[in-house]
Amino acid sequence: MSAPKKVVLAYSGGLDTSIILKWLQTEYGCEVITYTADLGQGEELEPARHKAELLGIKPENINIVDVREEFVRDFVFPMFRANALYEGLYLLGTSIARPLISKHLVELAHKYGADAIAHGATGKGNDQVRFELSALALDPTIRVIAPWREWSLTSRTKLIEFAEQNQIPIAKNKRGEAPFSVDANLLHTSSEGRALENPAEEAPDYVYQRTVNPEDAPNTPEYIEVTFEKGDAVAINGEAMSPATLLTALNEYGGKHGIGRLDFVENRFVGMKSRGIYETPGGTILLEAHRGIEQITLDAGAGHLKDSIMPRYAELIYNGFWFSPEREMLQALIDKSQEFVSGTVRLKLYKGSVHCVGRWSDYSLYSEKHVTFEDDAGAYDQKDANGFIHLNALRLKLIAARNARVKK
Amino acid sequence: MSAPKKVVLAYSGGLDTSIILKWLQTEYGCEVITYTADLGQGEELEPARHKAELLGIKPENINIVDVREEFVRDFVFPMFRANALYEGLYLLGTSIARPLISKHLVELAHKYGADAIAHGATGKGNDQVRFELSALALDPTIRVIAPWREWSLTSRTKLIEFAEQNQIPIAKNKRGEAPFSVDANLLHTSSEGRALENPAEEAPDYVYQRTVNPEDAPNTPEYIEVTFEKGDAVAINGEAMSPATLLTALNEYGGKHGIGRLDFVENRFVGMKSRGIYETPGGTILLEAHRGIEQITLDAGAGHLKDSIMPRYAELIYNGFWFSPEREMLQALIDKSQEFVSGTVRLKLYKGSVHCVGRWSDYSLYSEKHVTFEDDAGAYDQKDANGFIHLNALRLKLIAARNARVKK
Amino acid sequence: MSAPKKVVLAYSGGLDTSIILKWLQTEYGCEVITYTADLGQGEELEPARHKAELLGIKPENINIVDVREEFVRDFVFPMFRANALYEGLYLLGTSIARPLISKHLVELAHKYGADAIAHGATGKGNDQVRFELSALALDPTIRVIAPWREWSLTSRTKLIEFAEQNQIPIAKNKRGEAPFSVDANLLHTSSEGRALENPAEEAPDYVYQRTVNPEDAPNTPEYIEVTFEKGDAVAINGEAMSPATLLTALNEYGGKHGIGRLDFVENRFVGMKSRGIYETPGGTILLEAHRGIEQITLDAGAGHLKDSIMPRYAELIYNGFWFSPEREMLQALIDKSQEFVSGTVRLKLYKGSVHCVGRWSDYSLYSEKHVTFEDDAGAYDQKDANGFIHLNALRLKLIAARNARVKK
Amino acid sequence: MSAPKKVVLAYSGGLDTSIILKWLQTEYGCEVITYTADLGQGEELEPARHKAELLGIKPENINIVDVREEFVRDFVFPMFRANALYEGLYLLGTSIARPLISKHLVELAHKYGADAIAHGATGKGNDQVRFELSALALDPTIRVIAPWREWSLTSRTKLIEFAEQNQIPIAKNKRGEAPFSVDANLLHTSSEGRALENPAEEAPDYVYQRTVNPEDAPNTPEYIEVTFEKGDAVAINGEAMSPATLLTALNEYGGKHGIGRLDFVENRFVGMKSRGIYETPGGTILLEAHRGIEQITLDAGAGHLKDSIMPRYAELIYNGFWFSPEREMLQALIDKSQEFVSGTVRLKLYKGSVHCVGRWSDYSLYSEKHVTFEDDAGAYDQKDANGFIHLNALRLKLIAARNARVKK
Repeated sequence: MSAPKKVVLAYSGGLDTSIILKWLQTEYGCEVITYTADLGQGEELEPARHKAELLGIKPENINIVDVREEFVRDFVFPMFRANALYEGLYLLGTSIARPLISKHLVELAHKYGADAIAHGATGKGNDQVRFELSALALDPTIRVIAPWREWSLTSRTKLIEFAEQNQIPIAKNKRGEAPFSVDANLLHTSSEGRALENPAEEAPDYVYQRTVNPEDAPNTPEYIEVTFEKGDAVAINGEAMSPATLLTALNEYGGKHGIGRLDFVENRFVGMKSRGIYETPGGTILLEAHRGIEQITLDAGAGHLKDSIMPRYAELIYNGFWFSPEREMLQALIDKSQEFVSGTVRLKLYKGSVHCVGRWSDYSLYSEKHVTFEDDAGAYDQKDANGFIHLNALRLKLIAARNARVKK
Repeated sequence: MSAPKKVVLAYSGGLDTSIILKWLQTEYGCEVITYTADLGQGEELEPARHKAELLGIKPENINIVDVREEFVRDFVFPMFRANALYEGLYLLGTSIARPLISKHLVELAHKYGADAIAHGATGKGNDQVRFELSALALDPTIRVIAPWREWSLTSRTKLIEFAEQNQIPIAKNKRGEAPFSVDANLLHTSSEGRALENPAEEAPDYVYQRTVNPEDAPNTPEYIEVTFEKGDAVAINGEAMSPATLLTALNEYGGKHGIGRLDFVENRFVGMKSRGIYETPGGTILLEAHRGIEQITLDAGAGHLKDSIMPRYAELIYNGFWFSPEREMLQALIDKSQEFVSGTVRLKLYKGSVHCVGRWSDYSLYSEKHVTFEDDAGAYDQKDANGFIHLNALRLKLIAARNARVKK
Repeated sequence: MSAPKKVVLAYSGGLDTSIILKWLQTEYGCEVITYTADLGQGEELEPARHKAELLGIKPENINIVDVREEFVRDFVFPMFRANALYEGLYLLGTSIARPLISKHLVELAHKYGADAIAHGATGKGNDQVRFELSALALDPTIRVIAPWREWSLTSRTKLIEFAEQNQIPIAKNKRGEAPFSVDANLLHTSSEGRALENPAEEAPDYVYQRTVNPEDAPNTPEYIEVTFEKGDAVAINGEAMSPATLLTALNEYGGKHGIGRLDFVENRFVGMKSRGIYETPGGTILLEAHRGIEQITLDAGAGHLKDSIMPRYAELIYNGFWFSPEREMLQALIDKSQEFVSGTVRLKLYKGSVHCVGRWSDYSLYSEKHVTFEDDAGAYDQKDANGFIHLNALRLKLIAARNARVKK
Repeated sequence: MSAPKKVVLAYSGGLDTSIILKWLQTEYGCEVITYTADLGQGEELEPARHKAELLGIKPENINIVDVREEFVRDFVFPMFRANALYEGLYLLGTSIARPLISKHLVELAHKYGADAIAHGATGKGNDQVRFELSALALDPTIRVIAPWREWSLTSRTKLIEFAEQNQIPIAKNKRGEAPFSVDANLLHTSSEGRALENPAEEAPDYVYQRTVNPEDAPNTPEYIEVTFEKGDAVAINGEAMSPATLLTALNEYGGKHGIGRLDFVENRFVGMKSRGIYETPGGTILLEAHRGIEQITLDAGAGHLKDSIMPRYAELIYNGFWFSPEREMLQALIDKSQEFVSGTVRLKLYKGSVHCVGRWSDYSLYSEKHVTFEDDAGAYDQKDANGFIHLNALRLKLIAARNARVKK
């Protein structure tokens, strides 16, 4: 394959993607366009501009974009409508950010007339799959360069050597291996690798970066109210907020109360198990809140159907199939269910836990008139239960009679 | 239908089932056999014997049986192998006890030559369905009497009058309505009705009966280790225990740390929503522990399949179909997966939360050799990811190419 | 409950619904509005008007409506987008017509200010459930009268007596029991009961009403081409047709070639098994055609997801839950998949069989360039399969290594 | 990677695998052990022995084994218990044979102390995946050689040249390309490629090899009876037969009547669509027969659960995951359902079609007493349907009331 001429690189400004930037220039002699997204990872991004310039990127080739609202509105919120959990526990914080980045890389490739995109994910993880499936689903002709699967810089020493040879500035604390690897965005922070590789050992407290230790959280519970419209959170304590603003606020509540920590061993799409430490403070609150409002606004038929397809939906996102017909079909199903998922829930936050303790809605299906232990004024005829039970039992009775007959 | 001659009654010794006992005698003139099960509800059962005798039951017709080991071994543990949660949150503590009771009622009916069984569940709830589907699945000819759907004692006043007229002793605090209704067994306590009927209002603290308020729980976390064999918990902190003993011990840990409280609005099988307050201290710990050990001993194929059928499995138990072909088929699938789910997890208990913070097993599928960020000595060839991604992307690329073509 | 004042009756003009009409008048003294739908059952409907008048129905209360286009467009076609089969074989011809009828009954009730609707389905079948769930989902306050579950006309003799006493004309051949019961509409004819009740015995040929015996079908195959747009059939042999016209034409093709006969024992929603003989000539062709066009226009992700939810979708329709949130959610999923299901299939019809023997589309995902056994000019790199297989195998290898280890 | 020393080759005796045999010898200088399985493909296998000897294989390294009974008993029959169909239509005839072959290859590798196995599947198809996943699931350390993905013999000319240079005999008709590629075993014959690559064109009749054209089939229907025990066919017309004998007999019936032809475009696991012509005469009869006996012996709960997991089960087999935890879990579920699937069905075979026209069983759940249109002597109380419908409707009514309320 011939060398690419123009490459759009997902560039964080950190050491690894700076090395990639340089390697692309030297290996392929290509022009590099950088893309740095503000996904709410909580770092200053202007240094990335400076660093890119230092590495010879033309100012018009440097793209630093705040995509926080898009991220929450078009990716995080649709996913939360499904109450998506991967393998029962993981809120998919890394997975859901990758298709957004790929979408922008592809768009920039088209804008700049680039013939390839590049990313800094390694060959062992899920992110490479997510980046590349997303990109190819959007442009089947795009070329994707994954330097970690190509180059010979296979040890820390070689990377540092390459950096030094190429005048890439190295922060002091980056000379050695970091004790673990971190990914962050507005939804979560994940930490994995090295010091965390033994799943038998509790993760040390210094791993956690955006939640306090529950033991250090306030000794008094705090209550908040979250309001939903059509399945999406729109207000906290009555104050309307944009998606990203709202998630930011929930992160603050969650972080303060030590909510959303997860120590997890998961199955990667590439076939191995890995152990991760996740912090999803706002997302954990949001899940509990969304479930709370669905409890009174979704009926059993809608709710159970959603529950039954959720694992598959979560698996698709985890595996990188956000831009796939089947994810879009499931999304259509989920979105259809959310028309009346509007109302408010009351949540109690306390030392690592969030619990829904109240919920109300103009769209509620809860009927005190039917459920009451008191006289229900004829709303419900208890004798109906006879027929309901008799006909539900009929097939079981026929089985039992058959079994008794043949076992004689 | 002619009057039954002998009826086996699920008898708690409380006021309501005492009234039912008397009503069966007076309404049908039938002989009553009582069945009182120790399911770990935490009440003395000998008073039930005394009361039954007082109501004229012959001593040989009184059956008080400790079924705690059977309950946990044959019902609770099989269910926990599935990580079963109804509607995402409820651990099915009431649902799972009903088929056990029905099984014993039917067996006693056969032993005593009774032609009917009777229970004290109302016509609005799920329990009537669970009792009756279970009984009819075991004996399709058994007659089931549900006095609440038959009699005219439709108000508290009428019930009390009937009790007084029939010399049924009434505890002082039972003259008025209880503020809410309670069901308890070794797995959980549920509270619902009356004072709890408004789902917008937080349940008052006095509702909780077997867990301390997290705010009153110890200020220091406690760690325990739970060991599993083939999917079932067998030891705590290295001490082997029988199923019921183990669950009792987990309940103590959970109760002490305020773990397992749930404020929940659920969809009943009979079509209405109801609000319940559940306390499942030991079960909540057990779920987290079981998930923890599955994380390293189940592969993705097995785990994802289990996850995908879990909602249906939970729904079957909730709806009363424990003794059904489809529940047994799903159980066969689940049990098949548990052959190597053996090992130990370390759990942190603190103020309402339980988190798995470590897990190890001789049967672990976690391969540090594969996942490591360090040199993996060839365990994994990162270039394999190229082909993996290319072929997973192929259909997406064909779609994208098609879409581009037709949109021109 | 007080007597209804005005009732909209689903009226076929036959003996049974004429008796119901009269019974409503005499039992309740209510005004009856008749609704007779032309669903393509192939009978003259004007006699129903005459007969209704004879039974004293005011002309303005008689409604005879041709709903064939609505039936196929809004009910049959959406269902066929799913390739719906109940229990693997049944094309749901009766099930899909019931919600349409209920919709019209409820609309007429609103128009006439009626307080009830009535239908002629018995208490043993599925149709009562379908009629009533549909009606109540559209108007939860509507009262539904099911005379078969209420009256004392429990034998043929009593029905005939009632008819004679009430001057209801009785066709000669209706005095005795029909040898079996028939339901028909544009999609299918079903026959069941009496002479067909022994599932071991082959149904006699006179049962079949709209298909020739394959042995009597033409000795030469016939080819037709069916064109689809967005999942719906729109043309036969290049000639555009409305939905009902198209289905009528397919019925003619199918009937002539003996296509679409089914001898079937099914599980009714009410818990018993029943045996039915179904003829679905056009529908059987349509299913094969739709599958054929999906083969080249749907990718694996979309197709497999559709397949996996199909049984549930079919069950919902069979059980009467057309107007339910979960059916609508599944429909949203299905419809989302059909955007590019456009193109033409070629079908061979011959003596009871229909086979797709060719398909083509501007929207095809079939890539001869990729699949070819000839030189593919680099479209596909066979070496990619190495990585694809290695990573798909990784978890299986880890399992095998674990199993080998622990079995030592 | 170092060269393998001993390789077990799946050897058909044909030109392609003979070239592979020679290539292994020349490329790697390794000892080759041949494995030739009689899967019922209908060819003499002794010529394969002769040819292997000619190519220098030591007699003790030549393995020709009749595995027909194992194939049907341990692979085909378990799969048919599930009524497995891939993408709605394909009976998985090729897919199900591959894991059997891999199992034997791995066992021979162990027996001979070989360090690799080799197969003749190309890099574009599913078979390579099935061979290799199966082998690696059985022995994670086995090396698999797939010459088609390795060598440079990328055109017919080069292959023939290699054959000539290596004294490999070439049958006259093998010098040119075959017009299509064939795979056959006792379950089916598949044909694909080259002349069949245009899915718009009907396959020419000469493609079909084991079924007569329905137009040439007998003009008179033939009836047969198939008896099942626990889900497996055990007798035809009352004559007990071993699995392979029975399937052979069904193939004769099916072939004679032109049954089981399928023209199909499918989605390969590797991401592309391909067109195949399948002939599965006996299997098509077996599926119809098995469905027929399940109709009366499985209840709705068991049957619908089976239906709902079938697509996933079929996909697993198609994709090569026979030896995977999830296939085994699903098999446990399926097998659990078959305990009482015993009885006999009567089938009508006629010009390309097979229809079940009668079924009976000592284990039948069909209850004429319940379903009858005649007086049922109280077996079923039609009034039970009231309660059944009311409670099934309750949630729909609550939704309708809510919707009416909020739309005001």
